[in-house]
Amino acid sequence: MAAKVNENGVHGLEPATKKCRAELTELQKFDEVFQQLVDDITKQGLKDGEIHDAFKWFKEVCEYNVPFGKKNRGMAVVSSYRYLVTEDKLTEDNLNKARILGWCVEWLQAFFLVADDIMDHSFTRRGKPCWYKKEGVGLIAINDSFFLEMCIYQILKKYFREETYYIDIVELFHETTLQTEIGQNLDLITAQDHVDFNSFSQERYNAIVKWKTAFYSFYLPVACAMYMAGISDSESHANAKTILLEMGHFFQVQDDYLDCYGDPAVIGKVGTDIQDNKCGWLIIQALKRASPEQIKILEENYACHDDLKVAKVKEIFNQLKLSELYTQYEEESYQDLMQLIEKYSQNLPKQMFIAFAKKIYKRNR
Amino acid sequence: MAAKVNENGVHGLEPATKKCRAELTELQKFDEVFQQLVDDITKQGLKDGEIHDAFKWFKEVCEYNVPFGKKNRGMAVVSSYRYLVTEDKLTEDNLNKARILGWCVEWLQAFFLVADDIMDHSFTRRGKPCWYKKEGVGLIAINDSFFLEMCIYQILKKYFREETYYIDIVELFHETTLQTEIGQNLDLITAQDHVDFNSFSQERYNAIVKWKTAFYSFYLPVACAMYMAGISDSESHANAKTILLEMGHFFQVQDDYLDCYGDPAVIGKVGTDIQDNKCGWLIIQALKRASPEQIKILEENYACHDDLKVAKVKEIFNQLKLSELYTQYEEESYQDLMQLIEKYSQNLPKQMFIAFAKKIYKRNR
Repeated sequence: MAAKVNENGVHGLEPATKKCRAELTELQKFDEVFQQLVDDITKQGLKDGEIHDAFKWFKEVCEYNVPFGKKNRGMAVVSSYRYLVTEDKLTEDNLNKARILGWCVEWLQAFFLVADDIMDHSFTRRGKPCWYKKEGVGLIAINDSFFLEMCIYQILKKYFREETYYIDIVELFHETTLQTEIGQNLDLITAQDHVDFNSFSQERYNAIVKWKTAFYSFYLPVACAMYMAGISDSESHANAKTILLEMGHFFQVQDDYLDCYGDPAVIGKVGTDIQDNKCGWLIIQALKRASPEQIKILEENYACHDDLKVAKVKEIFNQLKLSELYTQYEEESYQDLMQLIEKYSQNLPKQMFIAFAKKIYKRNR
Repeated sequence: MAAKVNENGVHGLEPATKKCRAELTELQKFDEVFQQLVDDITKQGLKDGEIHDAFKWFKEVCEYNVPFGKKNRGMAVVSSYRYLVTEDKLTEDNLNKARILGWCVEWLQAFFLVADDIMDHSFTRRGKPCWYKKEGVGLIAINDSFFLEMCIYQILKKYFREETYYIDIVELFHETTLQTEIGQNLDLITAQDHVDFNSFSQERYNAIVKWKTAFYSFYLPVACAMYMAGISDSESHANAKTILLEMGHFFQVQDDYLDCYGDPAVIGKVGTDIQDNKCGWLIIQALKRASPEQIKILEENYACHDDLKVAKVKEIFNQLKLSELYTQYEEESYQDLMQLIEKYSQNLPKQMFIAFAKKIYKRNR
């Protein structure tokens, strides 16, 4: 079984400070853009009798699948943009453009999630049935995921065609899509229906996380903001990528940790990575540290939908003190990331990266 | 059950005249470009240990799914380009570029076919098992179809990035992809698991054919050649589209006719449209002409995998003289198309359209 495309987030978990209220307003402004974009995409088609029925369907595809995530990725375009330009550039028009690019990131994610859920045989997503599980949808959802992908380019064409960075953004979305597909392939060919710990290695884990999650979740939003701010030189982009892929790696490790050790009431789901035979951070660490006897127990109890067996796996995790190992890793990786930001931010605003990092680290509290 | 994405073709069916031999050479040259493109797409990834396994997989995805069609769509880019430019422009370099664009059309088709076969629960394609039916593939094929799509943009970026028409071609592929997805949606939401002739109308048939097949199979290859030849004004493209969508419509009607009345030895497959509950041209015509008694027989026998029932449907088709109706339609539509060419070709070479039409009409002989 493949690892879930990841989409845990921050919103709603922070205390209602002044900063948080300001963000809520930005979230509201961000949300207001969505319906306009759906209208842009569907208006003409809905009026055309020949294809009306298809667009009625597609409108629902957008409304069901795009807007109900945490929107961290989309919002990251806006917050990054704020750090990248001078005050006078922060016009409502420019901020709106950043929001639109943010929604393109959300549309890309929706495209991946709809397809991913089919490939993973998942049942629920964001607290609702997966789109393909809805009555009358089924494998039509494959075509719907393609449609969600093409919405991105319709939106970009409408709002960015005259911008000098139009082609950069189009190519960025193409490239990110390809990278994510590479990661998805690695994930799918690594996963097995039965337990085979030989296929679980730290190297493969690192590769899956980088390609399947980090490019589209961390580099993409910041790169969009950079192009919008007129920063297109390959050195700046390479530096940002170095920092953001590392951030993405930590994000995924944390997500894997929370799947087992997080409070379901806080993370909003009951983890099933052990049952689902996921090549996650915990099992990778366990396999490095376990005795032959412990490995035998893991082999006998991993990848089973049986609470007793899951408990036995967790017992081994506890014996190996993986929770402490994680706390140590979290501390170290935060320091590493700060050093990376120090070294690679160069002409880019350090605070942009630090603010992003702070949103992610210790998000379980 | 949804109508199959169509890909019948001409090659191998014409007598070995001098013209045909010349085309064979062009086909060989066209074929030679393919392996180079696969190398372009996979070379770097294969060298990178982190993602080597994904690219080993993707290489097979390309080699299994892209090159074994009739290649009419891809070759149409090259033959159209030859009509559109003066002799001095027909350099090996330009022809090679046209071949590369032709392969992009073939890659687009492969993307559609891989996904279409999953949605249609098909078993075979081009005389081999469908990709998703291969051992160890299954729903990973969904991600593979995305990969095939992204190959197009990798190829375009590598070979056309410096051309003034680069963005036109990128947008053309986006638009065509969207159009085909609209058609696929109409096809899928019209098809039912059970017989429901109420959903079969001439209007819906026309819409499915236009959106699902005609844009990508007829307009796209010629439009690629036009952009390459420096023809980008919207009037010329609208005119070409008018002609080519009509040609695409006839192509599909003929395909539907041959599915029932063609010689399997000549068309290369045994038709199953009746069994598969297809909203095809013959059943649409039959429903317009049948008596209430005949409609009752059609309802009782359509959409069944039972040779006796299929024979009963064909018996009604024969009683309604649909074969004669088709011959008449073919004759009339050819005349209509020639008039359309006369009226709309304007600055574009008539012969380009006529040559294309002649390849399609009476392809059963």
